[in-house]
Amino acid sequence: MDSVNYGLVGIGNTPNSAWPYHYAGTKDNPKINFTSVFDIDLNKGKKLAKLFKLKFYDSFDAMLESDIDAVLVLVPHHAHEEVVVEAAKAGKHILCEKPMATTLEGCDHMIEATKKAGVKFMIAENHRFLPAHQSISDFVKEGFIGNPFMVRTFEGVYETHNINNPKSWKANIEKAGGGALMDMGVHKFATLNWILNDTVDSAYCWLTKQVTDLPEKAEDNAFIFLKYHSGIIIECTLSFTVNSPPSNHLEIYGTKGSLIENHSWKNPIRLYSSKKLDAEKYDGWYLPKINHGPFPKYYLISMGIEDAHFTECVLTDKDPVFKPEDAREAVATALLAYLSAIEGKTTRMDELIDLYKKKGTKSIFEQLPKAIQINTILDK
Amino acid sequence: MDSVNYGLVGIGNTPNSAWPYHYAGTKDNPKINFTSVFDIDLNKGKKLAKLFKLKFYDSFDAMLESDIDAVLVLVPHHAHEEVVVEAAKAGKHILCEKPMATTLEGCDHMIEATKKAGVKFMIAENHRFLPAHQSISDFVKEGFIGNPFMVRTFEGVYETHNINNPKSWKANIEKAGGGALMDMGVHKFATLNWILNDTVDSAYCWLTKQVTDLPEKAEDNAFIFLKYHSGIIIECTLSFTVNSPPSNHLEIYGTKGSLIENHSWKNPIRLYSSKKLDAEKYDGWYLPKINHGPFPKYYLISMGIEDAHFTECVLTDKDPVFKPEDAREAVATALLAYLSAIEGKTTRMDELIDLYKKKGTKSIFEQLPKAIQINTILDK
Repeated sequence: MDSVNYGLVGIGNTPNSAWPYHYAGTKDNPKINFTSVFDIDLNKGKKLAKLFKLKFYDSFDAMLESDIDAVLVLVPHHAHEEVVVEAAKAGKHILCEKPMATTLEGCDHMIEATKKAGVKFMIAENHRFLPAHQSISDFVKEGFIGNPFMVRTFEGVYETHNINNPKSWKANIEKAGGGALMDMGVHKFATLNWILNDTVDSAYCWLTKQVTDLPEKAEDNAFIFLKYHSGIIIECTLSFTVNSPPSNHLEIYGTKGSLIENHSWKNPIRLYSSKKLDAEKYDGWYLPKINHGPFPKYYLISMGIEDAHFTECVLTDKDPVFKPEDAREAVATALLAYLSAIEGKTTRMDELIDLYKKKGTKSIFEQLPKAIQINTILDK
Repeated sequence: MDSVNYGLVGIGNTPNSAWPYHYAGTKDNPKINFTSVFDIDLNKGKKLAKLFKLKFYDSFDAMLESDIDAVLVLVPHHAHEEVVVEAAKAGKHILCEKPMATTLEGCDHMIEATKKAGVKFMIAENHRFLPAHQSISDFVKEGFIGNPFMVRTFEGVYETHNINNPKSWKANIEKAGGGALMDMGVHKFATLNWILNDTVDSAYCWLTKQVTDLPEKAEDNAFIFLKYHSGIIIECTLSFTVNSPPSNHLEIYGTKGSLIENHSWKNPIRLYSSKKLDAEKYDGWYLPKINHGPFPKYYLISMGIEDAHFTECVLTDKDPVFKPEDAREAVATALLAYLSAIEGKTTRMDELIDLYKKKGTKSIFEQLPKAIQINTILDK
């Protein structure tokens, strides 16, 4: 087999879905063929199938019975579990958008089903494949900043229209599994766990609702402290209401230096280190050359690399470097932060695992509305 | 009177004290004469007096009996109260370094004594007088970013040598009134209260000790969430252990735009707004022209403006714009964050006021050591 034929599930949310970035990021890769599509919204699906020259199926089963090798899952978060399990049963390899699922129950069900079926399964965590993050991971591992002890990280986007739209599943508690924290937090947690080679011990979280009064919607903004097992402290702010171009920053402070990343810089990394590096220097900071471009370019770059990696794993029968267990840990971290907001205290991962065993993590979403601080400030 | 004669109290900590910045920032101002000095360390005091061409006094009383008009108080934090009260009794005007005092009791004693004596009294909060902050305050007040709803702010410096030195009063709980939070937090809180025209309702805080195991020392790093009365949420990280050039950032997100400040940029502000502004634009962001320069230049600029303002108030019998009550509020915010760390929960300003009435805020420092997370990561 020289290339992989993919069927798309859930293209209908385009242009808000991840599809256009997958499309544009892989169009020059001869090993990736997007051939087919199914969407529950038949009209939207047909229209987009025509636009992107895909074969349209009016049922998921029918598409799964076709000759596709793999599926790319683009449905709303709450539907990932069902779609992935069904595709696994049909023996298809699966690349599924983040977050893996909205519950740990869902994650474990998906892991079990894909293992049993022996199919390749990866969550499309593009931040894990971003060249800037790969460089940061390398610099940390090679000791350029000594031992990391503190991280500050931020993502801010403008989703006000979706949050105020009852028909949009964005920030819908049931369908999205939460708001800014679940949606953007998993990017941060998957990336940081990998770069820091560690996982979260405990979390504290504030959630706020500043632009909507729709009861079915979760937080617009989330403010999180994480403590890793090694003692590293992370500050993470996630916002759906930032009224300026998309912002994505990461600062890692170590005993022997600092790493500053800003995705809207053309050169996204600045490194302060006593170790010598073959890179341009400015004001004492190294500016390594990295394949990058402000949004949306870095999404095309990272998704192109991510999709190529998964495709290569299918073609050569290797396990993807971003494992389902890693994606599950990112979901667990988001759920832990929600639990902390509900309990109003610093909460340990042990407590989340206990809750999972006793009544399931889905119970978190029932309690979520009362954990969100309502402090409407935005203009109506 | 055309100019003000100042006596310095506590020059001995130079070059670590604020004195060199006051000196360099005011040297071209003919209205400011630093004429005299007293320091408890007579040898250091004499040496510095000679270097800066000042008259040396071997007792504070003797200097207060001289013809100086005002004092500039540079002693360690815990001694501000006694020195200010004594200077007030002698009828001298007082410019005193931050934080005002280490307790609310101390602040109130100082306010009472200076009011009773009828002398001018200002805390030398140079961030309040920084041109970049004045511009930010103007932009916010003029509606350039709509209603602010979220702030992220950071100060990171390298004080590892002082924190590990038992002889240094830096981060000594009793002498400094805490660590990074008390030392740098008051800058942030005084500045934000003014820019946002609001005060803190509640706080949550994590404190960590990463570079020292000296029991008399407080936190190296502090992680704080603040909720203002209006509902604005602030994230504030303060670090004594950042191993790169001094970092000082502020991000204010509003309903109609964003303001990003970085003190190490030559042009310290980027403004995103739909309102028109007569300034250079880059990538959609306005870059207003501001009198600024990376550290240490912005310290000279801000202290020059601050000292000129206080001097003008003395000469024209006007009240300084930065009131002792504002400086007290900044100390109260730091103490509230410490109280939150001790109680392990979000704590309201009401609770701090209660504690103050019942047993005094000095009691906070007795409980502080057990509230600090010990998570040593730094290389020994």
